Amino acid sequence: MADAILVLNAGSSSLKVSLFALADGAPALKLRVQTEGLYTAPRFVAREPSGTVVAAREWGNGERLGHDGAIKHLLAFLKGELAQYRLLAAGHRVVHGGAVFERPVRIDAEVLEKLAQLVPLAPLHQPHNLSPIRVLLREVPELPQIACFDTSFHRTMPAVAQAFALPPEITGRGVRRYGFHGLSYEFIASVFPRYDAEAAKGRVAVAHLGNGASMCAIVGGRSVASTMGFTALDGLPMGTRSGALDPGVILYLLDEMGMDARSLEKLLYQQSGLLGVSGVSSDMRTLLASDEPRAAFAIELFCYRIGRELGSLAAAMGGLDALVFTGGIGEHAVPVRERVLRAATWLGIAFDPSANAANGPRLSSAVSRASAWAIPTDEELMIARHTLSLIAP
Amino acid sequence: MADAILVLNAGSSSLKVSLFALADGAPALKLRVQTEGLYTAPRFVAREPSGTVVAAREWGNGERLGHDGAIKHLLAFLKGELAQYRLLAAGHRVVHGGAVFERPVRIDAEVLEKLAQLVPLAPLHQPHNLSPIRVLLREVPELPQIACFDTSFHRTMPAVAQAFALPPEITGRGVRRYGFHGLSYEFIASVFPRYDAEAAKGRVAVAHLGNGASMCAIVGGRSVASTMGFTALDGLPMGTRSGALDPGVILYLLDEMGMDARSLEKLLYQQSGLLGVSGVSSDMRTLLASDEPRAAFAIELFCYRIGRELGSLAAAMGGLDALVFTGGIGEHAVPVRERVLRAATWLGIAFDPSANAANGPRLSSAVSRASAWAIPTDEELMIARHTLSLIAP
Repeated sequence: MADAILVLNAGSSSLKVSLFALADGAPALKLRVQTEGLYTAPRFVAREPSGTVVAAREWGNGERLGHDGAIKHLLAFLKGELAQYRLLAAGHRVVHGGAVFERPVRIDAEVLEKLAQLVPLAPLHQPHNLSPIRVLLREVPELPQIACFDTSFHRTMPAVAQAFALPPEITGRGVRRYGFHGLSYEFIASVFPRYDAEAAKGRVAVAHLGNGASMCAIVGGRSVASTMGFTALDGLPMGTRSGALDPGVILYLLDEMGMDARSLEKLLYQQSGLLGVSGVSSDMRTLLASDEPRAAFAIELFCYRIGRELGSLAAAMGGLDALVFTGGIGEHAVPVRERVLRAATWLGIAFDPSANAANGPRLSSAVSRASAWAIPTDEELMIARHTLSLIAP
Repeated sequence: MADAILVLNAGSSSLKVSLFALADGAPALKLRVQTEGLYTAPRFVAREPSGTVVAAREWGNGERLGHDGAIKHLLAFLKGELAQYRLLAAGHRVVHGGAVFERPVRIDAEVLEKLAQLVPLAPLHQPHNLSPIRVLLREVPELPQIACFDTSFHRTMPAVAQAFALPPEITGRGVRRYGFHGLSYEFIASVFPRYDAEAAKGRVAVAHLGNGASMCAIVGGRSVASTMGFTALDGLPMGTRSGALDPGVILYLLDEMGMDARSLEKLLYQQSGLLGVSGVSSDMRTLLASDEPRAAFAIELFCYRIGRELGSLAAAMGGLDALVFTGGIGEHAVPVRERVLRAATWLGIAFDPSANAANGPRLSSAVSRASAWAIPTDEELMIARHTLSLIAP
């Protein structure tokens, strides 16, 4: 019977679970289980890493399986189909660890209470992240659970990088730049020495470009700045999120367009970014295939903002030794990387078009002063590793 | 009888007027007239450029002179004390020219109507800027009036630098990055070739650091990027303004602190920035003289953000040939410049401490790859020049 670890990532309407078996003490992915449409038309599918479907189920349209139902179905599935694994622990992706949690933590009632107190800092994500934790505590109370945070990796940022220029009545409530995608950056920081040992000791900018997108400045393996701020809304434009916005724009939308917090939230989280600018899609692949001038402009804006933030992050590090692309867009969107790399010539990057076309991993030429890379991220594996390290005797 | 031009800069509670006489066709400052406390305890003072007071008057406490009264008093003063000047025109500082006005414009009824339509874009400033225009149109309808905009200089920015990642329903209403302090940047761009002819053809970052603060990227004399956005709230932290803020912070303040547009406006325009962070003062001189740790942190944050934005602007230009400081803080705050210059070493700036201590104008050493300068700005003179050029036959 093999030892295994579950990694859970719960969104508002989906639950993504990865099963890692321990082989010689290291986690190896065995299964990806995805349950989507939790409150509309639930569908469950379990795949081997190769993509082979090993189980699938669909519920009726209008069925509300919910997070509870999805977890219970998952546990039943694991007990039946996967009786050969003995679960050691569950590791959860939790978006917000606030200023309190500087590293992953084993969850007990007290920790769960503290995590719930952070809900106002991430009202759209934190409650969903906590939901499966509560179900597992009830259903399998003996199973150790570990929370891994998107914010922890950034707690090494200097105070000036975390501060907004607001009075203490506001900042004292926890309003600061937290930074997110920390598990992705931590993974990249952990593997980057294998790609470029010298640069990894120095100043590395990482661009995590997916449906959510941010960038991080890492010096000697530690985060010193991030483009994301208090929420996952700041910084780069994303699939449907606005990214950085003059606060005066919000005052205008409140005053002149009669918007309120809910309509602003909908606008800035769901109707802006690549989708809002292009009017075509939030998906970079669709935009790259489109002939629409507005789609081209959305891509241009996305790349331009990456270039501007790269300069800002280089300033935070006092220069640049390497640039790493990761995330769905970062790992695969050749024209996006080309545009960003060309614009980064001033930072000492000489890029290699054919290496870029082949998705790297090295994207820079031999004469490049700063190196450039495309490296796949693996947040689930990072969570599995943390989980393992926290339950090890 | 000498020809003269009036330059007017009207704020919410003050009216600042400069009288330029024409000497050999060039404007020369003769008098600065300031009326403050228009709605509380009005006081009027006229000074020669040397500082000598040539006239002063105070109204009673609680007297509401208003913009109308201030202009009328000014006209009476000019007619009496300054009968030796023949007024050719009045030039006005107008904060917002929207996307329409790419350069200064002679004001007629139609233009005034268009300027009034821009009030929603700058509700705190535009109405005050327009107030003296209306009074002069009524009182001296034959006097040519010219509007000079804080936004015009930035209309050369590429579309990506002006765009927010918002859908067209919002951007179509004029929600874009306009940039401000344009008259200051235009002045610096006009004189900089005299300081460094070679760099002036290239990539120049200008930091206008006063109670309001922003930075501009200028390539070959034309603005290509600015830290200020839709309003004068974005970018650097300022005396009492927050500068850049994650839009998610505003959602939090609406949801969790029950704030509304007016309380947000008060917080972000009047209670944040250097004042909010330090709890001591909005004035950099006071902060530099303070022993309070929070005052030191406010200065550190201000300089750090300048450094980050400098990197971002360098990215917009593809590098840096020169950095120019201007505005009250930029021209005089030696420790602020020192901190920014030291952090800019990675951009090729080698600074000269003794030159910096002497307020320049050159702040960089002979070996510096990019040059650095402190250069006084003169927005009033810029307005006078524009005004003159538009009324010249």
